[in-house]
Amino acid sequence: MNEVKVIEIKKSVFAENEKDADALRQELKSKGVFLLNLMSSPGSGKTTTLIQLINKIKDKVRIAVMEADIDSDVDAVKIKKATGVPSIQLHTGGMCHLDAEMTRQGIDNLDLNEVDLVILENVGNLVCPAEFDTGSCRNAMILSVPEGDDKPLKYPLMFTVCDLVIVNKTDVMPYFDFDLERCKTNIHQRNPKAEVIPISAKTGDGIDRLATWLLQEVNVDKLRC
Amino acid sequence: MNEVKVIEIKKSVFAENEKDADALRQELKSKGVFLLNLMSSPGSGKTTTLIQLINKIKDKVRIAVMEADIDSDVDAVKIKKATGVPSIQLHTGGMCHLDAEMTRQGIDNLDLNEVDLVILENVGNLVCPAEFDTGSCRNAMILSVPEGDDKPLKYPLMFTVCDLVIVNKTDVMPYFDFDLERCKTNIHQRNPKAEVIPISAKTGDGIDRLATWLLQEVNVDKLRC
Repeated sequence: MNEVKVIEIKKSVFAENEKDADALRQELKSKGVFLLNLMSSPGSGKTTTLIQLINKIKDKVRIAVMEADIDSDVDAVKIKKATGVPSIQLHTGGMCHLDAEMTRQGIDNLDLNEVDLVILENVGNLVCPAEFDTGSCRNAMILSVPEGDDKPLKYPLMFTVCDLVIVNKTDVMPYFDFDLERCKTNIHQRNPKAEVIPISAKTGDGIDRLATWLLQEVNVDKLRC
Repeated sequence: MNEVKVIEIKKSVFAENEKDADALRQELKSKGVFLLNLMSSPGSGKTTTLIQLINKIKDKVRIAVMEADIDSDVDAVKIKKATGVPSIQLHTGGMCHLDAEMTRQGIDNLDLNEVDLVILENVGNLVCPAEFDTGSCRNAMILSVPEGDDKPLKYPLMFTVCDLVIVNKTDVMPYFDFDLERCKTNIHQRNPKAEVIPISAKTGDGIDRLATWLLQEVNVDKLRC
């Protein structure tokens, strides 16, 4: 059965997003749930990356996925079909980002007693999602090779707020003018602490390293609680 | 000299964007100036496409370019250097789109007596720019092959408001699961009237057809005035 729950998200009436985000983060910590907020441009390979990553670690942690999209449910169906983990679709009603209250509306539809790790696939957009704290424990983003190694210079806030930058589609690097070292320099200019992990979601290259990073972060976060 | 004018755009205090857009459109028409609003995801190749296109038609029409970006001026400098046409940079101050009032702030910095065609390169984002009428005569967007042929299903409004969809990076089509016919079907599901022009800004393929489309639209629009 590939049916997935679809939730029509309502925009928060409160401008107090930071407060909402901190409250959600504390609540998730108290329940031992780690929330990863995954952002990127449209077409960077978020869903394919998630499928590879989830299939690698789903025997070690209990995972649920929340897929934010403007109005389709293509991604949630695809994730559920390919990995078997619970997956819900959040419809943003045309909105370009998720805030903490909108994220909570998704979280409230999960059984947190059955989950260690929630992965939120944010709306495909390098601008607005970076401006709103969702209440996540960590922020990650995917930059794909065809987008170019100059993106950290042009979308500075996105790269500043991310703990992890996944460089995807390394298999097509020979066909593009993309220099991984120049890309790392540009990322670290925005955020010296950012972890950078090159992968190819298509071939599976780098997924082991990505899985190791995520499992370690989940454990580190639990120890901190 | 590669210095370009950089304008810090202020957000419109009026919510009456449609009215502002219609007023700007009428004003531009009365002065015989055609405004093209070009949108896309980050990294789809907007600037490279513009350079190819401008060099093809700059002897036939007098062109100026307005480059919207969050805070860099990389693109305006690049356009000016590669084409010689007047190019100004609009800094959106972190904002994810341009509205009509913001577009006017750019237009006011051009000498309209010296220009037939103004090309506005909007912020790289498939969501927000589609929601705001800039006052343009035509809307165009670039979808690049690596982003995938399903994007019209996931970002419906963008494809609905565009008169032209440029499918860029066709030179790398063999390395991606991208079906041009499926893409056209998806685009026309959103917008049956949309013109679709496949190009490779890298090799120059399709630029002639793109140039023909734009010159024709500029002339058609002038006849209508």
